[in-house]
Amino acid sequence: MPFARISLRQGKSPDYLRGISDSLQRALEESFDTPKNDRFQVFHQLDAEELVFDRHYLGGERPRSDDFLIIAITIGKPRDTATKKAFYRHLVDLLAVSPGIAGEDVLIVISTSQRDEWSFSNGLAQMADAASVASP
Amino acid sequence: MPFARISLRQGKSPDYLRGISDSLQRALEESFDTPKNDRFQVFHQLDAEELVFDRHYLGGERPRSDDFLIIAITIGKPRDTATKKAFYRHLVDLLAVSPGIAGEDVLIVISTSQRDEWSFSNGLAQMADAASVASP
Amino acid sequence: MPFARISLRQGKSPDYLRGISDSLQRALEESFDTPKNDRFQVFHQLDAEELVFDRHYLGGERPRSDDFLIIAITIGKPRDTATKKAFYRHLVDLLAVSPGIAGEDVLIVISTSQRDEWSFSNGLAQMADAASVASP
Repeated sequence: MPFARISLRQGKSPDYLRGISDSLQRALEESFDTPKNDRFQVFHQLDAEELVFDRHYLGGERPRSDDFLIIAITIGKPRDTATKKAFYRHLVDLLAVSPGIAGEDVLIVISTSQRDEWSFSNGLAQMADAASVASP
Repeated sequence: MPFARISLRQGKSPDYLRGISDSLQRALEESFDTPKNDRFQVFHQLDAEELVFDRHYLGGERPRSDDFLIIAITIGKPRDTATKKAFYRHLVDLLAVSPGIAGEDVLIVISTSQRDEWSFSNGLAQMADAASVASP
Repeated sequence: MPFARISLRQGKSPDYLRGISDSLQRALEESFDTPKNDRFQVFHQLDAEELVFDRHYLGGERPRSDDFLIIAITIGKPRDTATKKAFYRHLVDLLAVSPGIAGEDVLIVISTSQRDEWSFSNGLAQMADAASVASP
């Protein structure tokens, strides 16, 4: 893994979603050392009344806009605080370039699972079995 | 935070969703001491075959109805059992008033993340950086 | 519990979803000793651009197909590695029969919550209160 769930307002183009997907994947590879091709993401496109968020709480200088998105990521092994911080900064920088999202509009939340809590295919617990497999 | 995902049957009005949102936010503020304006919620409105639930398992005297909802909340620091129990009771009481949901129809599940697993904006780890910030 | 979220491509029949639901429930009962009727599941049916997955990463001999699904399960008590492995294998075997999904197309990820993090109805913390209640 990781497995990411991205929640945002309805109405963006497939290209816009692709930009988010690519920037997220690149940030994971470069900051979390996630393997290339280890990409599993779900997008939830929501109506205005289905995505409720405060425009100011721990936000930036400008209020959050309608481009606001929540990126919830489940990872498969612990990362230390410095590594997480580097990931947040890198992801926000990449999203600013593609698809072009302001830093104010990016909320990230990570949940950490155990290595034996993943089965990628065929009912195998690949992470638990192969300590040498790169971690999700 | 917290970050809440609410799953329910399709067909409710925006006012009904707003009632859930407000009751949930108030319960978090009053029982978990969540800051005002720290509100981040996603609603998943589902067809009948997309929301599968048992009408009786650990339920109330009456079976669960089509108003059944699942409130899944990710929080940013541990709460003790007594605090969680008070939150459940308070949330159910508030939802009974607005938008008017029976206690039988409210399922709540909490997941706990670490303080450094949240970035609210601009790639910063606000909770990890400021011990004085109220906890999500 | 457990509480399961299943993400898959749009366009399957209600019978197909029911097959997934039944196979998942049976695997939970038989491998995790989940109580009968303890069934709570949400299906997210997604457009192609909303479900992003690599066709090969830790996959099978054949690439993942458009039938690919992600089963994310929150459970209420820890299970050991052997129990999880048995569950993965059993679930994949059952899904192959009904609704008929190849092992390559099944990704499973588990998250573990605490017993006091569940309220099934009426604002009660049934799992925390009754140690004798079967675990979610």
